Amino acid sequence: MGTTVNQLTIEQQHEVKRQLAIYQEGTHDIIPSDELEKKIVNSIMENRPLKVKLGLDPSAPDVHLGHTVVLKKLKQFQDNGHTIQLLIGDFTGKIGDPTGKTVARKQLTDEQVKLNAQTYFEQFGKVIDMDKVELHYNSEWLSNLSFEEVIQLAGKITVARLMERDDFEERIALGKPISLHEFFYPLMQGYDSVVLESDIELGGTDQHFNVLMGRHFQERFGKEKQIAILMPLLEGLDGLEKMSKSKNNYIGIDEKPEDMYGKAMSIPDSLMVKYFELISDYTIEQNEAIKRDLALGELHPRDAKMKLARSIVRMYHSEELAEVAEQHFITVFQKGILPDEIPSVEWKGASDVEVLDLLVDLKLMPSKSEARKMITNGGVKVNSEKVSDFYKTVQIEDGMVVQIGKRKIVQLQYK
Amino acid sequence: MGTTVNQLTIEQQHEVKRQLAIYQEGTHDIIPSDELEKKIVNSIMENRPLKVKLGLDPSAPDVHLGHTVVLKKLKQFQDNGHTIQLLIGDFTGKIGDPTGKTVARKQLTDEQVKLNAQTYFEQFGKVIDMDKVELHYNSEWLSNLSFEEVIQLAGKITVARLMERDDFEERIALGKPISLHEFFYPLMQGYDSVVLESDIELGGTDQHFNVLMGRHFQERFGKEKQIAILMPLLEGLDGLEKMSKSKNNYIGIDEKPEDMYGKAMSIPDSLMVKYFELISDYTIEQNEAIKRDLALGELHPRDAKMKLARSIVRMYHSEELAEVAEQHFITVFQKGILPDEIPSVEWKGASDVEVLDLLVDLKLMPSKSEARKMITNGGVKVNSEKVSDFYKTVQIEDGMVVQIGKRKIVQLQYK
Repeated sequence: MGTTVNQLTIEQQHEVKRQLAIYQEGTHDIIPSDELEKKIVNSIMENRPLKVKLGLDPSAPDVHLGHTVVLKKLKQFQDNGHTIQLLIGDFTGKIGDPTGKTVARKQLTDEQVKLNAQTYFEQFGKVIDMDKVELHYNSEWLSNLSFEEVIQLAGKITVARLMERDDFEERIALGKPISLHEFFYPLMQGYDSVVLESDIELGGTDQHFNVLMGRHFQERFGKEKQIAILMPLLEGLDGLEKMSKSKNNYIGIDEKPEDMYGKAMSIPDSLMVKYFELISDYTIEQNEAIKRDLALGELHPRDAKMKLARSIVRMYHSEELAEVAEQHFITVFQKGILPDEIPSVEWKGASDVEVLDLLVDLKLMPSKSEARKMITNGGVKVNSEKVSDFYKTVQIEDGMVVQIGKRKIVQLQYK
Repeated sequence: MGTTVNQLTIEQQHEVKRQLAIYQEGTHDIIPSDELEKKIVNSIMENRPLKVKLGLDPSAPDVHLGHTVVLKKLKQFQDNGHTIQLLIGDFTGKIGDPTGKTVARKQLTDEQVKLNAQTYFEQFGKVIDMDKVELHYNSEWLSNLSFEEVIQLAGKITVARLMERDDFEERIALGKPISLHEFFYPLMQGYDSVVLESDIELGGTDQHFNVLMGRHFQERFGKEKQIAILMPLLEGLDGLEKMSKSKNNYIGIDEKPEDMYGKAMSIPDSLMVKYFELISDYTIEQNEAIKRDLALGELHPRDAKMKLARSIVRMYHSEELAEVAEQHFITVFQKGILPDEIPSVEWKGASDVEVLDLLVDLKLMPSKSEARKMITNGGVKVNSEKVSDFYKTVQIEDGMVVQIGKRKIVQLQYK
């Protein structure tokens, strides 16, 4: 505890500096910033891996690139021999997360939690080594708390402190009700860190308050306090809002190479550098080169984005599939001609069908009204010919190609 | 539920009116006032006694006249065949104050709770028929609540609603911290009423908020809502603050006849009528007569106070002991001479002793500084002679009388 960096060998001092630089890279905030070095020093002196916690909400287990910002940070700790603590908030999942959400989440059953956790782990395995990870479910300790213990816990925090959380403060200002149970979400997250004795907790910037709760409660329970490492939030494909499944502006890490590549190509140019830094497999130096070349006009933004797209596919699939996805993209979207392989769909409907019904039946569009909009926007082609009249009746032919926008294409099998 | 007073027989209607008048007498507030009649009507129609709850804090079981204000109200319900629910808040008592800040809320063991409850019951037996009372300990249900159930409970109330409680509101305004666990005391009190299905809860005006919690939670749990009957708080002997043991301004119902009488004589004249109304055995009509006679100058305030003092002793001892206490008071305090029987104390100390040491050694005063104040105030006499010098050395003699104020007197045995 009283160790200082001066008590280390020169070699160890270099190691501290090396790790520190890696962990600091790309972070939005480290709180308190000076304690991270001490943690690393102690870990080296005591030959003890740091415990680095990430809490997971089991209600939405589809992992997208937004999540990989923290996963990549976790991987850096893992690569240096530290221990990742994945905490599945299964108990918490029964309450829902009031953070920035207006609609309360529905309760999950034990089976759903287990299934969702499994889904997480399979996807996380693409970034971190799941064999070396500590897995925890907070229902293990939270569901056994008695009312008396809950009151002891509640006695360690003030109402005023809880009301400082941005969304609570905002709701109070607007006169919107806060249900008392909502105060327990940050308490639980904090208590999890007490039980897990975490040294560091990772989170997005929206987790600022909750992550600091861990520090608060560890101190009140007489434990060593964790450090908060807050990562920037990744905007989604729309370039506006935080990437999330509900906003449909995400790239899932389980998506097909072609879809990943195509979606990556659709991000606004303004986000490109941030994506390179936060979610690509590029090193700091490589990113610096990209930035410089873009600034000097030596790299065309489209070409830079193709590098980014290729990096993303390579990370979650392989270099080979990244190459294929790139070729596919070039063929279909850049040259404007149909690719060799178009998925074919058997058509079992009538031979004459209204175009709106056709698009919905083929599941190319979710509804007729959406299909109508797409036609109005000029996004629907049948046999490479744009459809402009949404009352049009299509005569189905075998081999007919139906295309929506740039990437949804099917070829009909019809006899 | 849909019953109205019109569906009752004339006799029953009279009975409703009779009970209503009794219950309303002396109350500070009935919330909501119109529902009490409905409760009485239903009780008569369904031939079902009302459940009338009183919550008790097991940490301070000395019953004083302040408590008898609600006890007398409970007795009225009992006399009309309704059921008294005495709720011992032992769960709260066993938790104590998790912040350890309030001395009053130290943790109680099971044995202490049982002992304290027993002490309550013995004293309550002087006012109500304890054989007909329902006894409940809230640890029975509260200690079995799981964290999940606590959260469900917390989900039924908003933070804003809790912050409306006067003392919380005040502390927030002053920037004084409120520990989150404090929000749970009103929750628990409310939940007790859900479990007990109380029709009415009694309390002092300081229980306004907490008693209404019962109504709130009963509604949220789909139960019939209780009515709050709030009784005025009785000021203590100082005429300033609420009667309480900690303020040492109380008359305990277990005190000796002489002490009770003497203390009752010390209340300010301004409180006399309130004491008659709230804690004497006088009827409404008798109290009206006292008020009138005092106003007309036909009754001397001192004589009225003697009637009050006698009433109080009669209620908790007997008419005979009240007579004896009155004679004692007249002899000692009104005529200013020493009574026949003065407790004698064997003096084993030195023959020459400083007066401050003497008073402390005899346990007549708790400390030298208190003794000094008492001498300064002219409250110390040795052999009927006032002591004015607190450096005075007293030569002890057998039979010497030492007197503090009006009521503490000892005679020394010394050989």
